[in-house]
Amino acid sequence: MKSNHTNNNENRGVTLWFTGLPCSGKTTVSQLVFDQLQQSGARVELLDGDIVRQKLTKGLGFSREDRDENIRRIGFVCHLLTRNGVIAMAAAISPYRAVRDELRSLIECFVEVYVDCPLEVCKQRDVKGMYKRALAGELAHFTGVSDPYEKPLHPDLVLFTNEEIPEESARKVVELLVSRGCVTEKLLAQVAPNALGREQTHGGRSRQATGQL
Amino acid sequence: MKSNHTNNNENRGVTLWFTGLPCSGKTTVSQLVFDQLQQSGARVELLDGDIVRQKLTKGLGFSREDRDENIRRIGFVCHLLTRNGVIAMAAAISPYRAVRDELRSLIECFVEVYVDCPLEVCKQRDVKGMYKRALAGELAHFTGVSDPYEKPLHPDLVLFTNEEIPEESARKVVELLVSRGCVTEKLLAQVAPNALGREQTHGGRSRQATGQL
Repeated sequence: MKSNHTNNNENRGVTLWFTGLPCSGKTTVSQLVFDQLQQSGARVELLDGDIVRQKLTKGLGFSREDRDENIRRIGFVCHLLTRNGVIAMAAAISPYRAVRDELRSLIECFVEVYVDCPLEVCKQRDVKGMYKRALAGELAHFTGVSDPYEKPLHPDLVLFTNEEIPEESARKVVELLVSRGCVTEKLLAQVAPNALGREQTHGGRSRQATGQL
Repeated sequence: MKSNHTNNNENRGVTLWFTGLPCSGKTTVSQLVFDQLQQSGARVELLDGDIVRQKLTKGLGFSREDRDENIRRIGFVCHLLTRNGVIAMAAAISPYRAVRDELRSLIECFVEVYVDCPLEVCKQRDVKGMYKRALAGELAHFTGVSDPYEKPLHPDLVLFTNEEIPEESARKVVELLVSRGCVTEKLLAQVAPNALGREQTHGGRSRQATGQL
């Protein structure tokens, strides 16, 4: 969990909820977005998995009940931050649709970002060797192997992390924030140079992906 | 947990931590302070016991370990809110000094408010009949009866809820916030009329109590 202590009052509160399979790229992209927003002076917090498990949800396991409790607790904190003008970002597998929809009802401004990546690609990435252990039967309740993942039916944004580089995905998120009025154009101008620089290299793919929102 | 969604930018972030015996008046006073601050347009959240047990700390019991985890979790949320410019208020028995001091180290601007009320008076109030049950041996780990309460050694403020009416205690809290620069004089002016009205009736006791901070 990280924060920016200053604020230029150029953002309003929103919850950016990154959902997707393990190793789909949630942490990578959310970290990039966080860095860009922080540099721009926005009020922003990133609730990532490790900090959340340590500070909010210690003791919870991976049953559906515990997963839902985990998501509700993160959502509660995002809710408090959002209604106080903070861009609250959460990166969590959050495999069950019902509890994500519950958060959408709870939080005034909720943006669901589906980090879409084919299961086979996630398995190949296998950053922490968890898929390997799950496939070997050593891990129960592992999303994508022994537990379900329910794709969002109407996400606000889809990131295709198998086709886009992380910077393109991040740019799409920031652009969505601007189009929704969550951050100002001025703020975009501060973060755009990097993003545009990336697009010169990968613009075609980016536009294609954006067209599939 | 309650909030004010607008903000006049006349407050900065602070955690107001109300600690004291069961039935000492933490909830009553913190609710009054919250109402005054909310009416003035400050960004403010009140994390009260019931909401916290439901949203953040479900499943935790009353062993020292569980109590400390409870306090750390509330403190974590207060920390996030505070560094984003919110007045985060918590009303929790929080009987152990060490974990309160931990929060003081963690949170940039931490104000410990000791709600001081003689145990005998708290027992007489016994709002929910909990003291009665604890004294009858029906409740284990009940602070003040079968569990210790460690008074703050250096609280930022002491409220004598056996001598002051709740409105006087609340006024002392708001005045402290102003003197610490957490809220502006302008905001005080908005909330002062009520407080002053109360003081005309109870000024003597109020001044005496303030002198004992």
